Amino acid sequence: MSGSVGLSRVVEPAGVLPQAAWRLNASPEIGPDEVRIRVQRLNLDAASYRQLAQKHEGDGEKIRAEVLEIVETRGKMHNPVTGSGGMLIGVVEQVGPESPLGVKPGDRVATLVSLTLTPLRITDGLKAWDGLSEQVPAEGTAILFGRSIVGVLPDDLPPELALAVYDVCGAPALVDRVVRGYREPTVLVLGGAGKSGSLSLAAAKRAGARTQAIVVSEAERDTLARVGVADQIAIADARNPVEVAASFDRPAEITVVCVDVPGCEHGAILATAPGGTVIFFSMATSFSAAALGAEGLAADVTMLVGNGYVPGHAEFAVDLLRTTPAVRALFEARVAGD
Amino acid sequence: MSGSVGLSRVVEPAGVLPQAAWRLNASPEIGPDEVRIRVQRLNLDAASYRQLAQKHEGDGEKIRAEVLEIVETRGKMHNPVTGSGGMLIGVVEQVGPESPLGVKPGDRVATLVSLTLTPLRITDGLKAWDGLSEQVPAEGTAILFGRSIVGVLPDDLPPELALAVYDVCGAPALVDRVVRGYREPTVLVLGGAGKSGSLSLAAAKRAGARTQAIVVSEAERDTLARVGVADQIAIADARNPVEVAASFDRPAEITVVCVDVPGCEHGAILATAPGGTVIFFSMATSFSAAALGAEGLAADVTMLVGNGYVPGHAEFAVDLLRTTPAVRALFEARVAGD
Repeated sequence: MSGSVGLSRVVEPAGVLPQAAWRLNASPEIGPDEVRIRVQRLNLDAASYRQLAQKHEGDGEKIRAEVLEIVETRGKMHNPVTGSGGMLIGVVEQVGPESPLGVKPGDRVATLVSLTLTPLRITDGLKAWDGLSEQVPAEGTAILFGRSIVGVLPDDLPPELALAVYDVCGAPALVDRVVRGYREPTVLVLGGAGKSGSLSLAAAKRAGARTQAIVVSEAERDTLARVGVADQIAIADARNPVEVAASFDRPAEITVVCVDVPGCEHGAILATAPGGTVIFFSMATSFSAAALGAEGLAADVTMLVGNGYVPGHAEFAVDLLRTTPAVRALFEARVAGD
Repeated sequence: MSGSVGLSRVVEPAGVLPQAAWRLNASPEIGPDEVRIRVQRLNLDAASYRQLAQKHEGDGEKIRAEVLEIVETRGKMHNPVTGSGGMLIGVVEQVGPESPLGVKPGDRVATLVSLTLTPLRITDGLKAWDGLSEQVPAEGTAILFGRSIVGVLPDDLPPELALAVYDVCGAPALVDRVVRGYREPTVLVLGGAGKSGSLSLAAAKRAGARTQAIVVSEAERDTLARVGVADQIAIADARNPVEVAASFDRPAEITVVCVDVPGCEHGAILATAPGGTVIFFSMATSFSAAALGAEGLAADVTMLVGNGYVPGHAEFAVDLLRTTPAVRALFEARVAGD
């Protein structure tokens, strides 16, 4: 087990996981359960690119030089200031005999684990990149451990669209799993018009649930209404528990939080029926606000930390997109607007 | 419903629930569904007390002064750094005609909702407290809302002991519920020698699980071994994922985090088998570390925010203590040592 999370790639400090390491061994020679990717493009994390651009005042040469230096020094594209990485696209080059990832040489893939834990070597000096965008054409190699996540890029979707779906693909898969544990539940999604929210609604509806959404504005309500995945839509401030709880006649069996602002915990708990489940997908969730909130409200609800990984989640989300054209249209609009 | 969760006690910001409020109105005059308690003792949350003790380098005078200032400023004992509170013991003084809590004046009770949402007024300057323990003798008044949880103190247990049990009673009840969803699971408790840890182990064992514990020292190992609720005990640093995962031969189906220090998320995830469940009871848990950690490790585990409320949790925990004399002895030693 220990080798498969990449411990053998950690150079310093010894004994930590790859993400916590200062430096990884990015050698292209793979171990028995590793996979080597021929890199085509890095997608730098937005916060990381912004920090580099600000530091170098938008000078593309200097930004490129620093990215090269980080990768050279650390064996991974792990911005030491922001602590963030990004993801990459490439082609599978070699698969160790014990790899459980299910990919084969020639597959075009996106890595769904962070660059902060992915051994990376750049061989072209990033000469095709002007340093002026977080999309970085690159040649080199990256390593995936046995225990990793990778998505084969579908032929029928532009890579940008696939990446946008992969970015939130844990949400619909977990919603599907939770819905199947209830009998004809009502699923309420806070932030239903966003990427994770609309996919969560689509997953809930396909699994047989009645769906409700709370959105922040009339524009979002109209957008979501066109998608057709929410049986009922209300406009409310998700941070206001009283508003949230009053939005619909009865509490939901399952409430999904997809609003990326702090303070949505109590509304979600109040809106959930006894014996129900709250799934927190927002990174702005406060653990203690959730734990103490449920206790303070004497709320017998199961509260789940939204795990970004469920086996098969990438394919599941892509399939939802394919079979729900209006969800695809919503994603295309969001990607075009980025 | 809205009155019963204490909205009328919120001073600022308006429209949030009492726990999320910066400041509550702690006036002793009660509304129709409220209950007033004459306070006898506060039990500060361990993480909160530790933060205060560290900040003031163990200076009891300064710790006491800061607790008084927090209660004075916020109308509740809600540590603004840790976000946590604690609970209290007192005697019911007045019961509003519409209170559903089932208590009467003169009942000696413990509040089972957090101090972070309990309107509190201190009238004795905490003069009987030396600031050197999380058990705080106090005079003053506290308010319970209609939707609240309160436990009448059992006759056969000293109040300090009952309070210590009630403080962590959500943990064993939730562990019991989760264990019953698996077939002959192994339950691993990080921090097994503590209060919530030992009760979680006792609950797991009674529900038929095999039990493992990780503790921080030989002294804790010996203490826990005497209690007899852990089938196996290992000494490891719960913040070191590699050490944690290497402590036992196989991953556990259920891992329970009862260590009140930051950084235990990844070890808990790594130590849990695919399809397993991690229950986070520590208020030091980081939501994003848990969510991103599971994704980075491609860990198909269910992660639960430890809800401090499960119906019947107080009686359940007291019954565990009554029927497991060694657990009671451990609690008595911890209470005496506080």
